[in-house]
Amino acid sequence: MLTRIDHVGIACRDLEAAIAFYESTFGLVVVSRERNTEQGISEAMLRVADAPAGTSYVQLLEPLGPDTPVGRFLARHGEGVHHIGYGVMDITAALASIGATGVRLLDTRPRHGSMGASIAFLHPKDVGGVLTELVQAAEPA
Amino acid sequence: MLTRIDHVGIACRDLEAAIAFYESTFGLVVVSRERNTEQGISEAMLRVADAPAGTSYVQLLEPLGPDTPVGRFLARHGEGVHHIGYGVMDITAALASIGATGVRLLDTRPRHGSMGASIAFLHPKDVGGVLTELVQAAEPA
Repeated sequence: MLTRIDHVGIACRDLEAAIAFYESTFGLVVVSRERNTEQGISEAMLRVADAPAGTSYVQLLEPLGPDTPVGRFLARHGEGVHHIGYGVMDITAALASIGATGVRLLDTRPRHGSMGASIAFLHPKDVGGVLTELVQAAEPA
Repeated sequence: MLTRIDHVGIACRDLEAAIAFYESTFGLVVVSRERNTEQGISEAMLRVADAPAGTSYVQLLEPLGPDTPVGRFLARHGEGVHHIGYGVMDITAALASIGATGVRLLDTRPRHGSMGASIAFLHPKDVGGVLTELVQAAEPA
């Protein structure tokens, strides 16, 4: 069902500083920047690797304010890994399959994610404490 | 420098239960199990994807006791993402390059990791709160 580790989502307080760090320390390159008001984040996707099943990224997330999911995460935990995103071929089928096992779905239907992807989150309490995201990448234009 | 997301390291209280969950929910398959007394863990590697730059895994980690790094992590944070491992081609060169930027190296020389890999950890306080591991996979036999 899972085709790749699509991305590691990392919460940070200062997106520009975090981008500069990952660029200078690890040589990663920003391939997309977005502001997602629905999720309350300003974000950047930095490419780690291309592979037949799709690209893997580091996703850096700065909250748009304290009263957002990532803002509350930073207040509780400080900076660090916020979630893990795994690639799937068919997100609707994957949600049906996973939901049938009893894992609670934070999104019962896919919604808009980074770079035109369809995404959905699973409840971390049902996934061993890991906020887990499914990602069906956008079709190439 | 980074060639792939090698693995997501996830701390759990019950390795067998965590393996059963990832197998039944996501269809992952265990490809290696090890007991690493130096790191104080019993672990399993579950394959997510194969790619030209190497395989990506979910690594499930159960501490061998409370007075181990992962045991202390569980006591403080509960179950969840413990660290992120990135693949590199030459870990000695990568450590030299990263160390030169001022990031503190928890391992100044590579040590033994899962499946014969050479690994080294970077200080999470210097990597935006993310315990970051570099992984040079073992040469195929």
